[in-house]
Amino acid sequence: MGLQIDLARLSRAVTYAGIPDEIRTIVRQCVLDTIGVAIAGADDPLVRILAAELAEQGGPGVAGVPGLALRLPARNSALLHGTVGHALDYDDVNMSMPGHPSVAILPAVLALAEERHADGKSIITAFAAGYELACRLGRALAPGHYDGIGFHATGTIGTFGAAAACAHLMGLNEQQTVNALGIAATEAAGLKSLFGTMCKPLHAGRAAEAGLLAARLAARGFTARPDAIECKQGFAATHSPDFHPEAAMATPPSGWYLRENLFKYHAACYLTHAPIETARRLRALHNLTSDDIAAVTLRVDQATDRVCNIQSPTTGLEAKFSHRLTTAMALAGIPTDALSTFTAETANNPDLMALRDRVVIDLQHGWPHTRAELDLRLKDQTTLHATHDSGIPAPDVTAQGQRLEAKFRALVTPLFGEAQTSALMAAIAALDTLPDPSAIAALWLPPAAERVAAE
Amino acid sequence: MGLQIDLARLSRAVTYAGIPDEIRTIVRQCVLDTIGVAIAGADDPLVRILAAELAEQGGPGVAGVPGLALRLPARNSALLHGTVGHALDYDDVNMSMPGHPSVAILPAVLALAEERHADGKSIITAFAAGYELACRLGRALAPGHYDGIGFHATGTIGTFGAAAACAHLMGLNEQQTVNALGIAATEAAGLKSLFGTMCKPLHAGRAAEAGLLAARLAARGFTARPDAIECKQGFAATHSPDFHPEAAMATPPSGWYLRENLFKYHAACYLTHAPIETARRLRALHNLTSDDIAAVTLRVDQATDRVCNIQSPTTGLEAKFSHRLTTAMALAGIPTDALSTFTAETANNPDLMALRDRVVIDLQHGWPHTRAELDLRLKDQTTLHATHDSGIPAPDVTAQGQRLEAKFRALVTPLFGEAQTSALMAAIAALDTLPDPSAIAALWLPPAAERVAAE
Repeated sequence: MGLQIDLARLSRAVTYAGIPDEIRTIVRQCVLDTIGVAIAGADDPLVRILAAELAEQGGPGVAGVPGLALRLPARNSALLHGTVGHALDYDDVNMSMPGHPSVAILPAVLALAEERHADGKSIITAFAAGYELACRLGRALAPGHYDGIGFHATGTIGTFGAAAACAHLMGLNEQQTVNALGIAATEAAGLKSLFGTMCKPLHAGRAAEAGLLAARLAARGFTARPDAIECKQGFAATHSPDFHPEAAMATPPSGWYLRENLFKYHAACYLTHAPIETARRLRALHNLTSDDIAAVTLRVDQATDRVCNIQSPTTGLEAKFSHRLTTAMALAGIPTDALSTFTAETANNPDLMALRDRVVIDLQHGWPHTRAELDLRLKDQTTLHATHDSGIPAPDVTAQGQRLEAKFRALVTPLFGEAQTSALMAAIAALDTLPDPSAIAALWLPPAAERVAAE
Repeated sequence: MGLQIDLARLSRAVTYAGIPDEIRTIVRQCVLDTIGVAIAGADDPLVRILAAELAEQGGPGVAGVPGLALRLPARNSALLHGTVGHALDYDDVNMSMPGHPSVAILPAVLALAEERHADGKSIITAFAAGYELACRLGRALAPGHYDGIGFHATGTIGTFGAAAACAHLMGLNEQQTVNALGIAATEAAGLKSLFGTMCKPLHAGRAAEAGLLAARLAARGFTARPDAIECKQGFAATHSPDFHPEAAMATPPSGWYLRENLFKYHAACYLTHAPIETARRLRALHNLTSDDIAAVTLRVDQATDRVCNIQSPTTGLEAKFSHRLTTAMALAGIPTDALSTFTAETANNPDLMALRDRVVIDLQHGWPHTRAELDLRLKDQTTLHATHDSGIPAPDVTAQGQRLEAKFRALVTPLFGEAQTSALMAAIAALDTLPDPSAIAALWLPPAAERVAAE
């Protein structure tokens, strides 16, 4: 059959029983991390703007949004949750997509699950089905879709992932699922050139919303082409110079793309992580200070140039997409995991700007986007060298879970206090046996709102 | 300045006083025709699906939709109105866009105008501003955007038109208007390959909705790039092999692209209109019947091949995108202006299929898309020839208005009766002095709903 039908069949074939324990664990980690970064991002100005707009649109409050007190219709919940989840650019990544899968998919699944009172097993299974489909489609369109032309796969391919996940949760039949993917094909949008503006997080929200709408319309009988992805002038032909449908059918090494999910431990673009890790390592090993450093050469793949190579950032948002500044921050010992670091003040700090201006970016061809090599020349003429590849998944999923729990606590405890933070973590940890997601949604309300609701 | 800023400035500079009388007349014709075809399309299955979905999403009913009894929040009103307006593919066209400008722009303007109680002059001015911007941008991306790659400009460029129109109606300042266009750039979507499915009308609705959302978010302070259209990997670079920003700044012959608006008098794809006109003319001139015709050669531009050259349509929707069938229908004297004609029954009529199979399509290179040449060979060996170009605007705007009034009455009277139809036409004719669009929205309610509302 054609790719669209094949993808629908693979997606529908995902069952809870068929998901290995380790992959279920990773799904729970995705849920924990996506909700944690959403709660931490809920006070961002762009979130306040979108929340005010959607609150005004009203409608039955069937689904919530982490860290916010309002409840919305499912579609607007998905839009806002996707946007708030990506506001900090601190959510997870998969290089096969390539982009941010969870934040495009989970908000759609949770909105629908809250509305329909779907249980935890259904949520895990639907999310996994959508996640795998997004990565498969990403493989089929690589590298031209994201690297070449410049589409933001979180927005574009995320729409398909969200549509497949919602179709799974709603139990759509094959034809309806195929139609949901066809509707997604003609809704999908998002440009990489909008990185560094409020629109980047909006892409994730629009993907979640568009995917949810596609599945709901397909469930009601709305039709599209069964080959909208692969037909002449279809999604693939219009959105990538590369199209390898067979790549979508290849099985990833472990059987699951979820096994290759990458979590973020620095509050900046994922492609700045490897440079940051090299800089942190050299600083720690050699007890460096900014004053020791005469010259810095950072080698990264040229594909990162269009993503996170803003030379002279002036805002906190731009700082997250600046190789030169984030490397300088790490060399200077400024904590890159702290949300509060990425501000206009940091971007315009004269000492940091002086160090930033000593960083030379040496773009390479054909490297993994996640690889970095750092050469430092110190004022005493010592040269230092470090390499890192942030694209290699953590070998130990349990250790990954511990690091994510620490990240979640660091993000959420200052806002929710210890008791509510622990309760929310426990509810997510018990997702497999959760009868209704309302238990989680009750715990992600900000404490003040909870008090108001209880009064 | 860059194109995006230039377009925002031109759009903001449109004033009611600066719009010539003839152009105001054409705007009223666009409003009349768009509402008429929406009312006639309101019972379409795809409309029922989307209306049920949006009714479930609820929210304050600040804006209506022609021909439907429900009232919705502004964004969902725009989504549904745009979709219902394009359900029949009987709404107006501009070859500079190239696509359906009114149905992507007017639903957003009217939804916002109802919510804000904006007067008729504001509606006319905002619509004109958005319409001109859409055509200017279309010129800058032609021909590769629509013809070459295969984007559906009604969905993509329509989003910019709706955003500019809404920005105008809301009185956004220059920076906000520029941001609205930047948000539109990263929301815009829609594929030509979905023609012949329920997704084609959805594109118009999504454009209206996305443009409205872009303007509302920009009004609240949401940011985007001021060069999202023209920057590297921006909307133009990702969506067209052709980009001529200077073409967007050229003044159309009359000063207004609205002067080149083309109305549809056949209920099929606009690019089938010239072939239909040639076939109707030869049939009438020579008193032909199907049985007289031995061979048919239709010459049209090759660009129409991807749009409306379905060889053997089997559904009413596919029939609207079939040169061979629509030409056969016109030769056989089947009325192509009647909505009721485009059915599976017509597509599968054996006599008509036999005539259809005698039609040979001879694709030309470099012709206007709207030009057709028809050669008939009769069984008595007579040969007949006719040509038509449906891309030439009507020379007489008053005569055009009379033809549109007849079309409106033919579409609406069977549903609304004569009194309500005339009252609605009178309200639209008095748009320039209308204090509040609620007067029009009250008259586009289906009569049954009006009775329910009055009880």
